[in-house]
Amino acid sequence: MKQSSAIVVDTWDSPYAPLKPAPLTAATLDDMFWAPRRSLLRTATLPTQYRLLEETGRLDNFRRVSGRIDPRATPFKGYFFNDSDVYKWIEAAAWTTAAVPDPELTQMMDAAIAEIEAAQQPDGYINTYYALERAGDRWSNLKDMHELYCAGHLFQAAVAHYRVTGSERLLTIARRMADHICAVFGPPETGKRAGTCGHPEVEMGLVELARATDDEKYLAQAQYFLDVRGHGVIGGNPYHQDHKPFRELDRLVGHAVRALYLNGGAADLLAHTGEPALSAALHRLWQNLTTRQLYISGGAGSRHDGEAFGEDYELPNARAYTETCAAIALIMWAWRMLTLEGDAAYADIMELTLYNGFLAGLSLDGISYFYVNPMADSGAHRRQPWFSCACCPPNIARLLGSLPACFYNVAADGVWCHLYASGTARLTLPDGREVVVRQQTDYPWHGDVLLTVDTPAEFSLRLRIPGWCEADASLTVNGEPVAGPLKPGSYAELHRTWHAGDVVRLGLPMSPRRIESHPYALENTGRVALSRGPLLYCVEGADHPGIDLRDLVLPRTAGLEAVERADLLGGVVTLVAEGRSQPPDSAWAGRLYRPVGERRPRPRSRHTTITAIPYYAWANRQPGQLQVWLKEG
Amino acid sequence: MKQSSAIVVDTWDSPYAPLKPAPLTAATLDDMFWAPRRSLLRTATLPTQYRLLEETGRLDNFRRVSGRIDPRATPFKGYFFNDSDVYKWIEAAAWTTAAVPDPELTQMMDAAIAEIEAAQQPDGYINTYYALERAGDRWSNLKDMHELYCAGHLFQAAVAHYRVTGSERLLTIARRMADHICAVFGPPETGKRAGTCGHPEVEMGLVELARATDDEKYLAQAQYFLDVRGHGVIGGNPYHQDHKPFRELDRLVGHAVRALYLNGGAADLLAHTGEPALSAALHRLWQNLTTRQLYISGGAGSRHDGEAFGEDYELPNARAYTETCAAIALIMWAWRMLTLEGDAAYADIMELTLYNGFLAGLSLDGISYFYVNPMADSGAHRRQPWFSCACCPPNIARLLGSLPACFYNVAADGVWCHLYASGTARLTLPDGREVVVRQQTDYPWHGDVLLTVDTPAEFSLRLRIPGWCEADASLTVNGEPVAGPLKPGSYAELHRTWHAGDVVRLGLPMSPRRIESHPYALENTGRVALSRGPLLYCVEGADHPGIDLRDLVLPRTAGLEAVERADLLGGVVTLVAEGRSQPPDSAWAGRLYRPVGERRPRPRSRHTTITAIPYYAWANRQPGQLQVWLKEG
Repeated sequence: MKQSSAIVVDTWDSPYAPLKPAPLTAATLDDMFWAPRRSLLRTATLPTQYRLLEETGRLDNFRRVSGRIDPRATPFKGYFFNDSDVYKWIEAAAWTTAAVPDPELTQMMDAAIAEIEAAQQPDGYINTYYALERAGDRWSNLKDMHELYCAGHLFQAAVAHYRVTGSERLLTIARRMADHICAVFGPPETGKRAGTCGHPEVEMGLVELARATDDEKYLAQAQYFLDVRGHGVIGGNPYHQDHKPFRELDRLVGHAVRALYLNGGAADLLAHTGEPALSAALHRLWQNLTTRQLYISGGAGSRHDGEAFGEDYELPNARAYTETCAAIALIMWAWRMLTLEGDAAYADIMELTLYNGFLAGLSLDGISYFYVNPMADSGAHRRQPWFSCACCPPNIARLLGSLPACFYNVAADGVWCHLYASGTARLTLPDGREVVVRQQTDYPWHGDVLLTVDTPAEFSLRLRIPGWCEADASLTVNGEPVAGPLKPGSYAELHRTWHAGDVVRLGLPMSPRRIESHPYALENTGRVALSRGPLLYCVEGADHPGIDLRDLVLPRTAGLEAVERADLLGGVVTLVAEGRSQPPDSAWAGRLYRPVGERRPRPRSRHTTITAIPYYAWANRQPGQLQVWLKEG
Repeated sequence: MKQSSAIVVDTWDSPYAPLKPAPLTAATLDDMFWAPRRSLLRTATLPTQYRLLEETGRLDNFRRVSGRIDPRATPFKGYFFNDSDVYKWIEAAAWTTAAVPDPELTQMMDAAIAEIEAAQQPDGYINTYYALERAGDRWSNLKDMHELYCAGHLFQAAVAHYRVTGSERLLTIARRMADHICAVFGPPETGKRAGTCGHPEVEMGLVELARATDDEKYLAQAQYFLDVRGHGVIGGNPYHQDHKPFRELDRLVGHAVRALYLNGGAADLLAHTGEPALSAALHRLWQNLTTRQLYISGGAGSRHDGEAFGEDYELPNARAYTETCAAIALIMWAWRMLTLEGDAAYADIMELTLYNGFLAGLSLDGISYFYVNPMADSGAHRRQPWFSCACCPPNIARLLGSLPACFYNVAADGVWCHLYASGTARLTLPDGREVVVRQQTDYPWHGDVLLTVDTPAEFSLRLRIPGWCEADASLTVNGEPVAGPLKPGSYAELHRTWHAGDVVRLGLPMSPRRIESHPYALENTGRVALSRGPLLYCVEGADHPGIDLRDLVLPRTAGLEAVERADLLGGVVTLVAEGRSQPPDSAWAGRLYRPVGERRPRPRSRHTTITAIPYYAWANRQPGQLQVWLKEG
């Protein structure tokens, strides 16, 4: 089990996680949707990011600590948490080279690791902001300064590199830092310092380090960092996820990425402890997120102010913050919950977020990024090639790099298939048997999935019936319909003695859907969003020249036609409807408010063909307006 | 003209401002609405604020600079801009004692001035944050550190104190600081330093100082500080109002209070220069504000993030920021524009903001404050007795203290009456004649205003016909109807030779009004707000026990009855309608989104009497929900 990633996790020895990971290389993707994106990741995204790590001084920050460049001539550059971008890049490169060897990426990875190694302090401490001129201030401000956060990313990168390459070079660096942390922080009665990081992340890193090294000390340390929260050691602020003890949380508040990383860490610990109070808290948070605070894209964290969760139903569209990293963090959390419980609700959110809230963060050419992902826009919001706070780009890379590991799990009785894309999975069941399952499908464009079992064996094949299915899904084995209802939002279990070449056909109806939102989400009043399959749709200015998209009206009775457009945006299915453009009546000119009783001029409207594209693909053409929620009427 | 305030301004010698101020003591208010609030200001608000200036170290900050307390034993306390709170308090106390002498307030004022005087540096510089340990860093960060902002408030306070008391003690301090500033900052070709303040305010202070001292140098300095903006000397950020040269601005962006104070300063300069480009920019900004960015309360600045203006039509309700100081700044700007142009549109916004967006900032007991003024709330938002950033409380006090000066202007041909409340105005026309006008009215509860002219003289009496009038206003002089239409949003001019005892009756119909908002303001879709006279109404939990206000529905056909409630909230007129409470149908339970086609359970509703109270009065009872915009249906 050397190759499960930190996005997914290695639960082989986690007693409370019945779903075990497939190694990252077990599933290959050779589909038309993800495979080209992963190819671009390897050939464009990761190389340009490495260049930016150099150009922005992120690697020089390590070199000045090691003395490879003169620290007086070259000051520390950028934010105090910039080491983490280097670690995340290494993690992404490691997972990526696991699938397709790439000597150039490997060389970059080795070069970066050499810089890190040289910058580690004799006592194991490593953080380029605090290593030299601020050495005396180490650990002095855990609330704000992200030292443990950076360490967490180091641990995840090290585990990835170790699992992929077998090399212990970065793992050794990570262990030395982790041992140092374990020696410094702990309950005061042990003679250690109380503390935890203002930006959760190290919890997940430590658990994965424990899994990779079999050293339970790191598990205990993660547990300490979780348990000490909410007792005031870092100030008690929701922004830092320190407002309440974790087991008392009942809704998501404060900084969204912090909150969701923390939930990921808690879920990792739960896999080892099975603690009911922790499980109950995670369920309350999941309920709050999915029934009160989640965007229809799977984006999370509505507020710009503090990059934070808002009140329940506070889901503004143009002002949606929904940081790309929050989408990634949610996928990480959902995946962990899935391994604990095997509940398709987690896979539904994982898929929703993957295809929409996450994927919108990356341009079609793979080299520019959204940090913020609005649901409506004037056209001013465009992807950027980098950010001074560049958490999102390498995070996108590590998720895409480890994506194949999200498709399958194995369990005592067989295989769980969560996601659909053409490819081949060679999976090792807990009893050691290898089973091979092939998928052929045009997902997410078409809902027909053909699975071929290539191994003669008795086991259960569980196929996810997505919660988005409105009509009945169909399922056959070797042409014979499978009996019983296929409930959306569940797994269809096919238990049998398989013969090589057995063919399973899953039919997931992909009719275009109109979605309405809870009436307390005020901006969506009188509006619908369009979806098809796992994809959320939107309208964009480029397809509606001369129209102000705020005036677009989709008639209640208008049909929605799915139209294949191989020429558009790398090949998409659009949704097309006959609608109209209806600007505010002329008496609104120069006014923001008016009496209701006033005589209104007849509004003028004109016929317009509405073309909706997948939300992930917006802002890849000329700048223009975006709308996800369309006025109905 | 010794007593016009810095809220209103002294335009007697401003050639481009035809409307001249009435001295602050010229108009007395003895009505049932404002007079009790001004009495509370004197007896409760200002004394408690002074105590807080002491308790929070704001006065000690001056004492440690003068050495009256040991600066090593007592560190600087609070924010670097806290001096401004002391200055604003002095200004408020000065205006307040102008109307009603109050020896205790005068004693506090004198004590505070003595501390300020003792803390002034030999070169005239005064700022308690930079005076001692940071003396070497003076003026080193104009963008962020508010030194000129604090100076501006000192100037306004000094002018107020001088005009009210005739004492030059604080004015001398102000002049010394102003002279120092004039010596330091200016165009580089004069050998001075380029710069302007990241928080506009000094512009208004300098102009008023010029008016009080007849020293044109201060005018020129204000002009310099305005003109240098937008050329990058403080970083070019919209937050600091440095993104564009002022004359190129076409919409309000960035920090709302900064933007609106800057507009006030620009209008002050315009009164002296008549510069067309400045006037044009101010008109563009006014248009943008009032047709795209103003809340129905007169609140301005929708974003928490950066306390800033948002995009056009970005007017969230629960997340409205609408800082109380922004309402005050808007009143200041509107008043200045009114003196320049005599356009009732400015007076309409001044009145709207005064009775709603501003007044909500103060509790009915006069001792607690809102900084943020939402249009909807869960009940968690409550007024506070003070803030660490306490800009709003003394700002509220100085506006209330100078309120009488907002009621009237005089011009070459007579008197302009902008606002209505019982009281007596003794106004001196530019030609030296004194005219006395008495008002008797129950405004804002009833729209009948009886004005008595007590001076025999020929002049024009202009009475504002508010823009909110839906039905025809009525106007008689000695019982005779005045001919001609009375257009809402204009001034009715009564030019005649008045006899003592002439009686003018103005009837402003105050039917309850339903207001709708522009369709691009998304949260208000399908909703109406209720108004009556100048007052915006809202519904509050306290009047609707057991009801979730988000479920309240006001039927389109429901009548709105105005009900006098002497017992309620200090005496208000409520608006009462028969409506219903209609929670989301039961299929929404546990869901945030659902397919439109799905069968919906019949929504259950129950009859509810809806009682709306004036918006300014909310949150003065037990905590509960707030809604301004009611679902119609």
